[in-house]
Amino acid sequence: MEEVYKCTRCGWSISIEKYMWRCPQCGSTIQIASDNHLEVNFRDLRLGRGILGFIPILPRLVRMNPITLGEGSTPVVIREISGIKVMFKLEYLNPTGSFKDRGSATTISAALSSGATKVIEDSSGNAGLSIACYASAAGINSRIYAPVDAPRGKIELMKLFGADIKLMPTRNEAARAAILDKEGIYVGHRWNPFVIEGIKIEAYEVIMQQDQVPTVVIIPTASGTHTLGIYKGFKELIERGDINEMPRFYVVQHEDYSLIAIKLGKKKALKEKSPTIADGIRLTDVPRINEIISVIKSSNGDLVLVNDTDITQALKILIRTGFAIEPTSATAYAALNKLINNKVIERGETVMMPLTGSGLKMTKKLIDILS
Amino acid sequence: MEEVYKCTRCGWSISIEKYMWRCPQCGSTIQIASDNHLEVNFRDLRLGRGILGFIPILPRLVRMNPITLGEGSTPVVIREISGIKVMFKLEYLNPTGSFKDRGSATTISAALSSGATKVIEDSSGNAGLSIACYASAAGINSRIYAPVDAPRGKIELMKLFGADIKLMPTRNEAARAAILDKEGIYVGHRWNPFVIEGIKIEAYEVIMQQDQVPTVVIIPTASGTHTLGIYKGFKELIERGDINEMPRFYVVQHEDYSLIAIKLGKKKALKEKSPTIADGIRLTDVPRINEIISVIKSSNGDLVLVNDTDITQALKILIRTGFAIEPTSATAYAALNKLINNKVIERGETVMMPLTGSGLKMTKKLIDILS
Repeated sequence: MEEVYKCTRCGWSISIEKYMWRCPQCGSTIQIASDNHLEVNFRDLRLGRGILGFIPILPRLVRMNPITLGEGSTPVVIREISGIKVMFKLEYLNPTGSFKDRGSATTISAALSSGATKVIEDSSGNAGLSIACYASAAGINSRIYAPVDAPRGKIELMKLFGADIKLMPTRNEAARAAILDKEGIYVGHRWNPFVIEGIKIEAYEVIMQQDQVPTVVIIPTASGTHTLGIYKGFKELIERGDINEMPRFYVVQHEDYSLIAIKLGKKKALKEKSPTIADGIRLTDVPRINEIISVIKSSNGDLVLVNDTDITQALKILIRTGFAIEPTSATAYAALNKLINNKVIERGETVMMPLTGSGLKMTKKLIDILS
Repeated sequence: MEEVYKCTRCGWSISIEKYMWRCPQCGSTIQIASDNHLEVNFRDLRLGRGILGFIPILPRLVRMNPITLGEGSTPVVIREISGIKVMFKLEYLNPTGSFKDRGSATTISAALSSGATKVIEDSSGNAGLSIACYASAAGINSRIYAPVDAPRGKIELMKLFGADIKLMPTRNEAARAAILDKEGIYVGHRWNPFVIEGIKIEAYEVIMQQDQVPTVVIIPTASGTHTLGIYKGFKELIERGDINEMPRFYVVQHEDYSLIAIKLGKKKALKEKSPTIADGIRLTDVPRINEIISVIKSSNGDLVLVNDTDITQALKILIRTGFAIEPTSATAYAALNKLINNKVIERGETVMMPLTGSGLKMTKKLIDILS
């Protein structure tokens, strides 16, 4: 079975021999294309064993040296809201408390199969913590570039897992410095195509856990890997004939930080941005932005913008519902409220809503916001 | 199908009508007896949906009003250590970061079916947080009695979930005050039989996830609910004919806090106890102590004592393996080392080791211990 890297812009393509993260021809983002998923039976996929339960649908570089900490197989919790069935997918119950662990498992596995002894990541928090943890599990080194204002607790946890931390003045400078660092393999989640391979499993899981296809996916979006991963999963399930229709993707961003709104001409770029409580979606440079817009358009979805007032209100409700999440996760619920009020989502629909990150890493911040 | 409460001492028994927590005749602990498990097919049990996936093996009071936050279905991660296959069961990935959530789901469901509008718990941290969260999810009130030296972060999280917190001078005074509080239903995990019903599911999951029965279970033990729950699960699986043999249970306690060692005449009671980093196993009054000793004896297991030096060393290894756990969880790994050194566990055996609580709630403490 052939597996290839494919450039998302110029069409360059090559058979996969070792880890790569961008097109050598035009410098754009790449994705992985294969037919693995067409040859697999559902009975060969298993919940509750991390990526080991989904090995047959993963790339060869992952299959060669799979590193797992039990990522994925996160619970689905159902609540009815205004006649809509909401499937909360509890991604905050991943090993380091965020969905990033799905991509880190596949990434570190592929890096290991490519001979890596050190990996380099740039992150505002969750992705860096996740890579630090998985690198430690695999017995290799990690260096994480983070902005100075990244949440303190997450930085300390990265150090516990042995990461070498480099603090930079801004998120974008962290990204630039990480790419220039040649002492290890660059595994930055904004570029790295193996992240999408890990996350696509989330779509398979929902079908295995619920026997039901959501009509809508609502998802906080920064670098877009979560959106692109789930989309790819459902696309594979359609190609396999397991499901008939692609859910509509509603991509959620903060109104002051929405590069997609600017690109689509819906907003002007702000010179001064307010700080936001949703630190996970502050990204200001998004290599996969065209891919995200393409998911919105081809799925008949939309972009939804929210602000801190919306997020705080949503966070209060979700915490009292029993979900110990971080503020960024609540942006999707804030968007759901808007979509219901605007009659974009109607009674009888089924919404998949990943809750992306754990609040246990930031008790103090939660108390500040909610009190 | 009849379901009865049964006293663990005097043999008193009654058909289950509503929530109860001790024998009205002799004041001892009670357990639930039923044949539900004998009539269920494995294909009717499902991973990834919380207690909803295991409804057929749960008591009627739970089935009537099941409250779930996606507890259980925690991953199994395999590592080979000295020729022994260790199945780490990642209980710290439960909704509030500990195995207690399994028991809280069944407890709050049963309390709701018994008309409760307020529940009372006593706890050093994890159990209280868990009950506060599930009570909030069910829309009922909670009051938690905790010792003044309970971890601050856990107390703050309980408040976020709307709990009314009463701080008492000691853990035992918290327990006494909670039992005397008549403003709500007492659901204290040390007594409450529904906790064991929730936890027994963990044994079923291991079989569903791995198709393999462990020969040994190693488990940190304070109030004993985790030990008794897993034991009951395996006992049901034996009665069903799914497995042939009961694993040996190695129960782990801190050498200064082991009531079991005192009861078995292996240690004398200390007047002055050192503080320990494993705050989850500091309990000094254990209503189910005879039941725990009976599990040790009937399974041909043993009590294993560890100290803070053992725990710190084990914690370092587990964190670097990628498990973001709290110190109490590491006691089991410390015990494994002793059991291997003493040749009690031999090459070729399979060990189930639940990792009980999340380190994300106590980053600062972890850094203090490990630096």
